[in-house]
Amino acid sequence: MSFIDTKPDSDFSIHNIPFGIISTPHNAAPRVATRIGDFAIDLSALAQAGLLSSVVADAQGVFSQPTLNLFMSLGKPVWSATRKHLQKLLSASEATLRDNKDLLERAVFPINTVKTHIPANIGDYTDFYASKEHATNVGIMFRGKENALMPNWTHLPVGYHGRASSVVISGTELKRPQGQRVVVKGEAPQFGPSLRMDCELEMAFLVGTGNNLGEPITIDNAKDHMFGVVLMNDWSARDIQAWEYVPLGPFLGKNFGTTVSAWVVTMDALEPFLVNGPVQDPKPMAYLAESTASAYDINLEVKLKPAESSKYSVISRSNLKYMYWSFAQQLTHHTVNGCNMRSGDLCGSGTISGPTEDSFGSLLELSWSGAKDIQLEDGITRKFLKDNDEMILAGWCEKDGVRVGFGECHGKILPARV
Amino acid sequence: MSFIDTKPDSDFSIHNIPFGIISTPHNAAPRVATRIGDFAIDLSALAQAGLLSSVVADAQGVFSQPTLNLFMSLGKPVWSATRKHLQKLLSASEATLRDNKDLLERAVFPINTVKTHIPANIGDYTDFYASKEHATNVGIMFRGKENALMPNWTHLPVGYHGRASSVVISGTELKRPQGQRVVVKGEAPQFGPSLRMDCELEMAFLVGTGNNLGEPITIDNAKDHMFGVVLMNDWSARDIQAWEYVPLGPFLGKNFGTTVSAWVVTMDALEPFLVNGPVQDPKPMAYLAESTASAYDINLEVKLKPAESSKYSVISRSNLKYMYWSFAQQLTHHTVNGCNMRSGDLCGSGTISGPTEDSFGSLLELSWSGAKDIQLEDGITRKFLKDNDEMILAGWCEKDGVRVGFGECHGKILPARV
Repeated sequence: MSFIDTKPDSDFSIHNIPFGIISTPHNAAPRVATRIGDFAIDLSALAQAGLLSSVVADAQGVFSQPTLNLFMSLGKPVWSATRKHLQKLLSASEATLRDNKDLLERAVFPINTVKTHIPANIGDYTDFYASKEHATNVGIMFRGKENALMPNWTHLPVGYHGRASSVVISGTELKRPQGQRVVVKGEAPQFGPSLRMDCELEMAFLVGTGNNLGEPITIDNAKDHMFGVVLMNDWSARDIQAWEYVPLGPFLGKNFGTTVSAWVVTMDALEPFLVNGPVQDPKPMAYLAESTASAYDINLEVKLKPAESSKYSVISRSNLKYMYWSFAQQLTHHTVNGCNMRSGDLCGSGTISGPTEDSFGSLLELSWSGAKDIQLEDGITRKFLKDNDEMILAGWCEKDGVRVGFGECHGKILPARV
Repeated sequence: MSFIDTKPDSDFSIHNIPFGIISTPHNAAPRVATRIGDFAIDLSALAQAGLLSSVVADAQGVFSQPTLNLFMSLGKPVWSATRKHLQKLLSASEATLRDNKDLLERAVFPINTVKTHIPANIGDYTDFYASKEHATNVGIMFRGKENALMPNWTHLPVGYHGRASSVVISGTELKRPQGQRVVVKGEAPQFGPSLRMDCELEMAFLVGTGNNLGEPITIDNAKDHMFGVVLMNDWSARDIQAWEYVPLGPFLGKNFGTTVSAWVVTMDALEPFLVNGPVQDPKPMAYLAESTASAYDINLEVKLKPAESSKYSVISRSNLKYMYWSFAQQLTHHTVNGCNMRSGDLCGSGTISGPTEDSFGSLLELSWSGAKDIQLEDGITRKFLKDNDEMILAGWCEKDGVRVGFGECHGKILPARV
């Protein structure tokens, strides 16, 4: 229990202690914070008061940074010790912070008064394609049933490089992209706003510590290199993507914006929710073979608020545990050729679709490429997103009365630029 | 003419004035420099002496940076003025620098005594596929003659996101990557070192000033956003690439390393070498339509030194002017959906193959996927690269007695990690 009031269903119980970047009305400088209940705790203020120097040598320097990169680069022992120390500082039985009125005033902010910022300077962003259900569904729609799942898919976690510059923080509004797309099948492409605006339900991990060029991260060490996890909406313009993606992969259909949630939930906080993932057949090659459970039981929800309504409808319920290739396998595969990762690199899971129709993670799948309506509240329907539609992704773990969640990943699609 | 001795065939005549990053034996801090003939000129030293404050407000701050990013972010009028001012300072008729022995000692270094560093902090690296000859050749080998050039190829500059972390400076040695590849056609993949190590002859432009998310760069403004051009070797493990690239594009087959040359040759220096590019049929859509010449007549050469010899053999002679889609079209297309570019972003041309067999820009094409030997000096042959082979890419423009060149882009392939 914390001395800071935390509702029982809060994503941000004392078992969580995520890390993020905030600024406040009286201090516009982005800096490191954690969150508990509906409060952000300014770690630069705690550091200034000397409360974090037992776990981080240059705590003031580290926690006054505008991103988590420096903190992440210190390595897992430091991340773990910091989280544990914060749990202690925030607990009801600990007087140090609880009884320091002055410091509480300087360090604790109601969450609706702070602005959150992108948590890391993302050097490189990679997106995987690790849900078998999603890869199969999309494969059928893009290439037909025979070519749905490519021969490589069950041998390696397929991934591609995404665009780091356009990764934005939850709450950012994005203009509908324009581009070339084929409007009438078989005819020449036309230029205009995307007519098939879609979302993708993803989670992504942030690389905490990287590796040198030429020195792969092994599967046994992979987890220790990961700092934490966020929700991610990989917005997709399906018509632009379908026309451009052969043979080098998605490009303008994706890179107009990718939204991540504000609070990075650490691997430590997620560890109690480890479960076995799907059985992998064929057995992965030795470099990808795992000896311990590496899937995470994280409930996921996709909500859509159509422009003409004030109500969100849940359009999908999925779970990260459906993901065929684990985060550890993704990171290991990514570096097996010597590719170097850096603190702050972002790796997305790919769309997390479950086995049933109500667990699909994209409108493309939910509307089966526009063949059917997605039913929202009050009789409203969608196939793809209309202008001013809003979306929220949510995710949380729950076990033995402990809840650890991600808050929300929110975005809104504005009309295309005139 | 410069008072600094410059051979007539030097890439770095007074007409060039490229920008790069150096460090020296007595000052390990990377900082901004230009090059003339076989000398590097330390611009942070010139700035400290007050010689650059007429063109850059905070010249000391800007030129003591470890990358060109800050200088690039100042915009084209500043880049142009700085280059012109340096041409004046270095000219034989100008006494200011010429007669300042102390400053010359502090600022001018024989090129073989300096270390060059990656010129920019590359936020994102994109690779295009803009040579029709290359796309056709590779298409035939990867997908057969019927599917060689995809329907989208003549409508837009096909591109994909590459890996920024593994872009390295000329002279860096790279280990042969390991990974999954199909050794016997139709059989299951095996794990091991790449058996088809290749190079790709490319050039790349650095984005000088970017754009805000959601606000495209128009074709008429594109040139003013580009800072300059480097040579680039997009090393490729063809067997890893062939197995992994469907459907999301190249990944581990490419991201183990990409080598760029050290000196960024400005668009201003290249302007005298503008020529008309290939006729584009069909006519590009309005947003890609150019009203002025936008191809560059840059001679290119690929040289290979096999491990068992001390001699480089020229294996290809090509020219950037063969590129179907111009740099301006690439940048414009990249942002038409609202994607934001930042100072320091790197955009590769894709392999620059010419129309004849001796102008192909990759071993894959030169050996026609390993079907024939590439002849080197002394009867040595190659199909793909062997361990300890070295490569040099070179490029230069020449017109009316003026030569502007790129120096070299060198790399060596070390044995795979044991």
